Amino acid sequence: MTPSNHVRIVEVGARDGLQNEKTLLPAEVKIALIDRLSSTGLQTIEATSFVSPKWVPQLADAAEVFRGIRKVPGVSYPVLVPNLQGYARAREVGAGEIAIFTAASEAFNRKNINASIDESIERFLPVMEQARADGVQVRGYVSTVLGCPYQGEVPISDVVRVARRMHELGCHEISLGDTIGVGTPAKARAMLHAVAQEVPMAALAVHFHDTYGQALANILACLEEGVRVVDSSVSGTGGCPYAKGATGNVASEDVVYMLHGMGINTGIDLDLLVATGAWLAAQLHKDTASRVTRARTAMT
Amino acid sequence: MTPSNHVRIVEVGARDGLQNEKTLLPAEVKIALIDRLSSTGLQTIEATSFVSPKWVPQLADAAEVFRGIRKVPGVSYPVLVPNLQGYARAREVGAGEIAIFTAASEAFNRKNINASIDESIERFLPVMEQARADGVQVRGYVSTVLGCPYQGEVPISDVVRVARRMHELGCHEISLGDTIGVGTPAKARAMLHAVAQEVPMAALAVHFHDTYGQALANILACLEEGVRVVDSSVSGTGGCPYAKGATGNVASEDVVYMLHGMGINTGIDLDLLVATGAWLAAQLHKDTASRVTRARTAMT
Repeated sequence: MTPSNHVRIVEVGARDGLQNEKTLLPAEVKIALIDRLSSTGLQTIEATSFVSPKWVPQLADAAEVFRGIRKVPGVSYPVLVPNLQGYARAREVGAGEIAIFTAASEAFNRKNINASIDESIERFLPVMEQARADGVQVRGYVSTVLGCPYQGEVPISDVVRVARRMHELGCHEISLGDTIGVGTPAKARAMLHAVAQEVPMAALAVHFHDTYGQALANILACLEEGVRVVDSSVSGTGGCPYAKGATGNVASEDVVYMLHGMGINTGIDLDLLVATGAWLAAQLHKDTASRVTRARTAMT
Repeated sequence: MTPSNHVRIVEVGARDGLQNEKTLLPAEVKIALIDRLSSTGLQTIEATSFVSPKWVPQLADAAEVFRGIRKVPGVSYPVLVPNLQGYARAREVGAGEIAIFTAASEAFNRKNINASIDESIERFLPVMEQARADGVQVRGYVSTVLGCPYQGEVPISDVVRVARRMHELGCHEISLGDTIGVGTPAKARAMLHAVAQEVPMAALAVHFHDTYGQALANILACLEEGVRVVDSSVSGTGGCPYAKGATGNVASEDVVYMLHGMGINTGIDLDLLVATGAWLAAQLHKDTASRVTRARTAMT
């Protein structure tokens, strides 16, 4: 393993995390969260989602939150958008980077948006075109890359095809997500390796859930394979919607602890990140899912 | 990574796990636990400890437990012994394999047994001699291999020296333990690599705690380095005595899930192991620390 010495963390707690939490936080707490996160040295903080409030009531205050956060120079605040209406709402408040999403699983797309994979991607064409015209960067999420709650196995060839298509359409970065957390290191590595034959590694990110405790091991395997962008969620915020009570996103604190321990630079102040994670857990009235934050808190 | 295709799990929940749990289980529950564990296909199950009940009241019933368990042919049931008195008690009930322990940290040895590392090893000489005469196998634990709660950093050269000495003294297997769970993959791998220059890899095991969430990633790194014996604790039983409220031993279920997912054989029935972990958590009146068991239970 000869790593380039820097990994960029994409902090997804304020969006992917909070949209899967039962507790609804007021907009000012979300704003405080994002402002705390930007003070830790994080370069990319997913801020919110302009999906319809009917689907995601937790983030109905997207405009208010995005307007309220302190925009730190050099920090990117992507927001999720599902379609042109969402794109327009995001742009209205000044969003400069957006994220779009699809799944590598046919069954998952059918069940969630009643479309095939190809149809789901075609639906993004107007958004991609408008974003290109506006000079807005687009991040692409591909979910269910290592397994699907409906169809089980997901062929690697489908993951490769979807990632390649999103890259062709202009996504500057493709985040490969193990939505249900079933993947193990050898499979994660093989999937990433296959995708990297078609999309440059520098344009790829990995997004693991810790449902089966495998997230850090999977991240390690993917770092060894060459990836340098990792999604994670402060305090492990966000449950697993497909296994109630189970763990969701890997905790940013645990990822950063591992990276720093390996001599990899993230630019993040781990102490500030732990303090932010502990604060957020208190806001959500739950124990933190970060083992680093738990251990540090237990020691004091 | 070109793994030989089998990893042996050393299940430590009934000893290392239970001795760090607040809840005292009756002997019959411990016996039921060990019998359930042996039915999963586990080959090595640490059964109990013949340390003085004054030090470890949780395992004061060592003789009763060891007598009570069903001895499955082909399964090994090592027991911890601190000295010749403990050895005699273990032999009285028929123990055929013992384990001894020391630390790679001078400060840890000083604080715990008021002896230097070298003195602590010398104290085992009579036990080793007697075991050799009796044809009893001896497993050696080396703790604090990646950090110490008292002295912080532990030089790799100290780990190598202690492991080599235990091997010279006749330990058939040396378990390298990150007692406080602070290690990260690159450090774990470098430590194992250094020890394997002096002790054959086939005589080494790794023992990780999940205090900082790093255990599975560390295990993966050590598998890549060539180790084929891994200690773990069903349901993640056993807290971290140096960080109250923090996670202790890595959960066997999560390790086995990872190994099987990588195509590595353990001989263990994961479903039975998960059922045993869920049962044990109920006996201890606590949530399981195994994410696999949590996810599987959440889904049903």
